[in-house]
Amino acid sequence: MSLEKKIISMARLTQAASRKMALVSTNEKNKALRLMAKAILKNQKFLVKENQRDLDVVIKKNYPKALVDRLTLNEKRIKAMADCLLDTAKLKDPVNEMIATFRRPNGLKISKVRTPIGVVGIIYESRPNVTSDCIGLCLKSGNAVILKGGKEAVHSNKAIFDVIKKSLKKTKVPLNAVQLISSTDRASVNFLLKLDEYVDVIVPRGGESLIKFVTQNSCIPVIKHYKGVCHTYVSNSANLRMARNICFNAKVQRPGVCNAMETMLVHQNIAKIFLPTMISNFDKAGVEIRGCVRTREIVSGIKKATKKDWPEEYLDLILSVKVVGNLFEAIEHINIYGSKHSDTIVTKNKKEADEFLRAVDSSCVYVNASTRFTDGYEFGFGAEVGISTGKLHARGPMALPELTTYKYTILGKGQIRK
Amino acid sequence: MSLEKKIISMARLTQAASRKMALVSTNEKNKALRLMAKAILKNQKFLVKENQRDLDVVIKKNYPKALVDRLTLNEKRIKAMADCLLDTAKLKDPVNEMIATFRRPNGLKISKVRTPIGVVGIIYESRPNVTSDCIGLCLKSGNAVILKGGKEAVHSNKAIFDVIKKSLKKTKVPLNAVQLISSTDRASVNFLLKLDEYVDVIVPRGGESLIKFVTQNSCIPVIKHYKGVCHTYVSNSANLRMARNICFNAKVQRPGVCNAMETMLVHQNIAKIFLPTMISNFDKAGVEIRGCVRTREIVSGIKKATKKDWPEEYLDLILSVKVVGNLFEAIEHINIYGSKHSDTIVTKNKKEADEFLRAVDSSCVYVNASTRFTDGYEFGFGAEVGISTGKLHARGPMALPELTTYKYTILGKGQIRK
Repeated sequence: MSLEKKIISMARLTQAASRKMALVSTNEKNKALRLMAKAILKNQKFLVKENQRDLDVVIKKNYPKALVDRLTLNEKRIKAMADCLLDTAKLKDPVNEMIATFRRPNGLKISKVRTPIGVVGIIYESRPNVTSDCIGLCLKSGNAVILKGGKEAVHSNKAIFDVIKKSLKKTKVPLNAVQLISSTDRASVNFLLKLDEYVDVIVPRGGESLIKFVTQNSCIPVIKHYKGVCHTYVSNSANLRMARNICFNAKVQRPGVCNAMETMLVHQNIAKIFLPTMISNFDKAGVEIRGCVRTREIVSGIKKATKKDWPEEYLDLILSVKVVGNLFEAIEHINIYGSKHSDTIVTKNKKEADEFLRAVDSSCVYVNASTRFTDGYEFGFGAEVGISTGKLHARGPMALPELTTYKYTILGKGQIRK
Repeated sequence: MSLEKKIISMARLTQAASRKMALVSTNEKNKALRLMAKAILKNQKFLVKENQRDLDVVIKKNYPKALVDRLTLNEKRIKAMADCLLDTAKLKDPVNEMIATFRRPNGLKISKVRTPIGVVGIIYESRPNVTSDCIGLCLKSGNAVILKGGKEAVHSNKAIFDVIKKSLKKTKVPLNAVQLISSTDRASVNFLLKLDEYVDVIVPRGGESLIKFVTQNSCIPVIKHYKGVCHTYVSNSANLRMARNICFNAKVQRPGVCNAMETMLVHQNIAKIFLPTMISNFDKAGVEIRGCVRTREIVSGIKKATKKDWPEEYLDLILSVKVVGNLFEAIEHINIYGSKHSDTIVTKNKKEADEFLRAVDSSCVYVNASTRFTDGYEFGFGAEVGISTGKLHARGPMALPELTTYKYTILGKGQIRK
């Protein structure tokens, strides 16, 4: 069978399984999640061994350290995978939740009820834990799932998938509700993206090239999990000590993640007091600063920020800094160069804070707090699929409710339309 | 300027205007809607004259009567357009509605707030009232809008658009927030569909060829408004009199709309009692029946239903009829051949009704009522953009709240991540 035919046949089976999956009870789903967690822990040695096959390749190819780190499975990370499944079992089942209910003058009782989406396709890069995390979240929300991981993690993903699939044999979860595309041929993704008849949503998690490829080629609705170009705007009404704490935390605490700050905007009236100490603090932490003209007038010896810096997601100890004339200029900069992810203002002025909250078009807009809080766990949602940077269906942390849709149920007593 | 460059330039201007539009107050938006309604009524003669130019062309080309009817503007229809705008002014403004608010253990106050989507692209066919209805709904929900109507209605749409745009000059609505692509070149749609940088969502309303073209070519998220292949399943536990009323209403009351019934499914145990009278009633109303083998055994002289009939949206006095063995078979038929629009069961058995409600994967699932109620007005939502047959973001009647998205606002007192 050709690769295309294989993908079509698999998608068709998954859709059929999704109809059964939607009806599996909460107890049965939780039982399956616990069995999956148990199996992951029991097969730890096998998972580490298969992961080593992937690691051998990327180390030999001299891939960046950060990628090798993301790819690595060890005892601690395998336990975290099992824990995520056990946590998911404890989360409230969103399926069948009544969102609203109302009665019409003609007596019809209309209810808006949460239902699974159907078949969810997830395309991701090198972190193997995404495999088990996403299977868990999709099953709990009553969906079938088709996974396509990065080629660097092919053996790790296959191993995790096989272990989980075997554990599902003792449950009421239909086996075809969980699928992995293990072909490393990118054409497999292209085939998948055309199957809008069978797949209801595609969630791509990754960098520019993946996101572009998916949005340009998909006939299926896409909820993109794209880059985080997060800003902190230090207003002239800021508590400057608080501003330094927040900026330092947002940049330095974990620079390699999407909710870390990439650009700091500073009001011109406080730039001369604020910037020297702040930049010296960053300097000590090894942060490379790329400044605008006015920043470089205030603090010497700083690299020049170019046009390419403003929309850049460094994911590293690098920060672009810009002095702005007023709140409006800060908001414009964020709406033009940001990625609609997370942005914060530090200010004591309530009116200014409200204006920032209203006008910044991002999934998470903060006042006086670090952007690093944008996260399903930190928001209290439990596990998450990721952070959506799209504007439709799901924005920001995407957790169980965002893996559902709704239907209207209408109860009548023979009503007909006049 | 080339057509592509024109479309890009217009989309860019619209996006800039959308940021201002999002901040226009409810009062200002309502004032604009009332001025638009006034202008529509005042320019009635001009609208009828321009509409006649379109009508002359389609009549000369011998287009189907139904299309000529949909395209026609008269005094009554122009008044209905103005009324829709006035009704929209009365609807609750969804923007800034607090969807949820909660406090985290670290003191962060997180709120989920409704916001406009941004730039909405609407692609539709021959009904000119869609032009003013959709401008009204998009403006009220704080969005900018780009419209592309059918080529048959090009003069009518341009006239309505010009009248509305002129009336907006006296308001705080930014003029660039309302755009019409008046080129009849389909390439213009193709150019628009690639502009995911500027346009946030595309709503195509129309038949198979339009929907296919849009889903296959769009880089922008699509909320499709596709066909309605609606079913009525008459259970062996049905009140047969009620069933006949509902089936007759769903097929005959207005056959040319998407929530009309196209297929009737009948349980085998009651088929012999139910079908002869029912089909005779349909016969008197001029409905052509296309039956399965068993239907044709029970009632003679009926056309044979072929494979092509089950997924067909007739939009006419034609009905396919199938006798099924049980509830499960009815549900399977609906999930396979239906269009996820509206489906109903007639039954006195509550358990069976619940099973149908849970298992049928459609936007609106009914018990003991006609599918003809799937409609924004009938649901009490006020005006509607249409009926979404997609599963993401908006399902079923798409009204003001479905024209919005949300953001999280997070208020802190200097919290940083540990």
